[in-house]
Amino acid sequence: MQTLRVNLGPRSYEIAIGTGSGDHFAEFVRERLPGAARSVVVTDSNTRSHGERLARSIGTDAVTAVAAGEASKSLACVTSLYSELAARSADRKTPLIAVGGGVIGDLTGFVAATYNRGLPLVMVPTTLLAMVDSSVGGKVGVNLPEGKNLVGAFHQPACVWIDTALLDTLPDREYRSGLAEVVKYGVILDPVLFEWLEANTEAIVRREPRAIAHMVARSCRLKADVVEQDEREEAGLRLVLNYGHTFAHAYETLGGYGSWLHGEAVAAGMVSALRLAERRGLVTREVIDRQMALLKQFGLPTERRPEWEADSLIAVMRRDKKNVGGRMRFILPTRLGHVAAFDDVPESELREVLASP
Amino acid sequence: MQTLRVNLGPRSYEIAIGTGSGDHFAEFVRERLPGAARSVVVTDSNTRSHGERLARSIGTDAVTAVAAGEASKSLACVTSLYSELAARSADRKTPLIAVGGGVIGDLTGFVAATYNRGLPLVMVPTTLLAMVDSSVGGKVGVNLPEGKNLVGAFHQPACVWIDTALLDTLPDREYRSGLAEVVKYGVILDPVLFEWLEANTEAIVRREPRAIAHMVARSCRLKADVVEQDEREEAGLRLVLNYGHTFAHAYETLGGYGSWLHGEAVAAGMVSALRLAERRGLVTREVIDRQMALLKQFGLPTERRPEWEADSLIAVMRRDKKNVGGRMRFILPTRLGHVAAFDDVPESELREVLASP
Repeated sequence: MQTLRVNLGPRSYEIAIGTGSGDHFAEFVRERLPGAARSVVVTDSNTRSHGERLARSIGTDAVTAVAAGEASKSLACVTSLYSELAARSADRKTPLIAVGGGVIGDLTGFVAATYNRGLPLVMVPTTLLAMVDSSVGGKVGVNLPEGKNLVGAFHQPACVWIDTALLDTLPDREYRSGLAEVVKYGVILDPVLFEWLEANTEAIVRREPRAIAHMVARSCRLKADVVEQDEREEAGLRLVLNYGHTFAHAYETLGGYGSWLHGEAVAAGMVSALRLAERRGLVTREVIDRQMALLKQFGLPTERRPEWEADSLIAVMRRDKKNVGGRMRFILPTRLGHVAAFDDVPESELREVLASP
Repeated sequence: MQTLRVNLGPRSYEIAIGTGSGDHFAEFVRERLPGAARSVVVTDSNTRSHGERLARSIGTDAVTAVAAGEASKSLACVTSLYSELAARSADRKTPLIAVGGGVIGDLTGFVAATYNRGLPLVMVPTTLLAMVDSSVGGKVGVNLPEGKNLVGAFHQPACVWIDTALLDTLPDREYRSGLAEVVKYGVILDPVLFEWLEANTEAIVRREPRAIAHMVARSCRLKADVVEQDEREEAGLRLVLNYGHTFAHAYETLGGYGSWLHGEAVAAGMVSALRLAERRGLVTREVIDRQMALLKQFGLPTERRPEWEADSLIAVMRRDKKNVGGRMRFILPTRLGHVAAFDDVPESELREVLASP
């Protein structure tokens, strides 16, 4: 088992990464949360058995399962978890343990951020996407009917436990969705990772443990580096992680939560961002071709659905959290391993990019 | 107009205190929030005219009024404000301006803390209670049916604007409710303030501007001093502000939100805390007599309603946010101007204190 540290002063924490290492979970949590009250495990209908096993290992029978899927990232689920915590007389020393994918981490994290003005949070991601992205960095939140992640907070976990053996039961589509975020790290920060992905597509698609271990550890380190430098997205640096996400959120909103997996929307969103970058003369054709090829080898969409119309997409994008003073902001690649923020994209230019799927 | 500064590093802010100084509001906000988008004013049915006037002065027509009263400090109101912000395409530079009493400040503050992971917040308190307490310090939140303030966050305002002329239309009962928190500051931190209150009861009850100005400025400074030393209630120091509040929250919960004003519950709660302190031999009879006398001169309750039974009160107190590891925690006076936290109060002792109203 290896351990990565996220350095954030008093909010620093460790990410444990291993395979089939569940026996050490109780010890790992106990060391990082001494004096904690009895934990409450939040999971979903798909990951319930993982949640119950980990709950037993730390001696709690408090396990709550919400319905699997993006629809549970809602204020309704937040409200029902609040009631459950009140019924259990949870106090500020009651850890919430999120066992599931990004939906469970974001939902549980938001409840942990706001119940009693803050409870300790333990992230146990069970999907590749949650392992490489959403369980690290403290962004938590839920969706509104008007847009994704419109409600949220920054609330760093007390620790993150990644057991890649939990991926054994992950459906293939979910696994591939997670690969989109790994590709993202390569494009925005790490050309060496990008080349490694190109050279190892078969091992990755076959889910070889060695390949998974490398992707997870490298992605967590890259994300941690960014978060350490700009925890609350104030310095602008953390914005780079949103590459492809302005488009992706619009695709997810138009499709209805759950029609596309998050990583699928990110894949198509990164292609849209690339098209915009190409129009502006920011990237060479080679960068575009390589990213498109990699996404296709991972079986990810590179086009949005044609029925999502430009007008509706732009209306959603106008509400994006990254916008400032009414101007839309895009993260666009300038070369492999580097992106920058642009807030000077006129709507007409955006409309041309969205003219074809 | 005088200005107090709350020193919290990057989250530092200023509190302006004046009388009839509304003309300078726009300038005050503009200086502290350069580059802000168009503000959204949140107010209630009682304070709507103040809200509309201030909105005009800063050039926005976005004014939302919720129903006056504690019942609006709810997840339902939070949800409807979220929708309103989405409809207005609010972004991270959209300030929320809370014009009202504690309910409006806490509700608006929670929405500001969580919409888009954080919007700038301007507090414009219109009640004495909000001026001396809830508009300063960054505690925001809403109630659940199971208990008061169970959901919340720490979100410091960008600035606080106190115009004591807004108190002219405040009903007497509301004004007296605010006095309870001023008495609290005297008991927990400042014997000189306590003596000043004893010596000036008539001027205070007659609402003499000189008396109000002194109470507001002194209370804000005392609260700011505490918050500066323990912003997130982690060091234990900020807990002193909760004197009387464990009992008070139980009284408010049992009475149903809105049956007692917050300050009324705090007055009765401080007396309950004093009774507990007396049983434990912590305070002399003189401290009790003086506090009781002052509260009575301000027309505040010193007993709970007899129909609120001990069992039900204790059940609510067991969910109090200050509890740690299942132990109830009480802030009790040890001498005038000093309190300490106690978590060794057995339920039997609490039950005896609650045996009589």
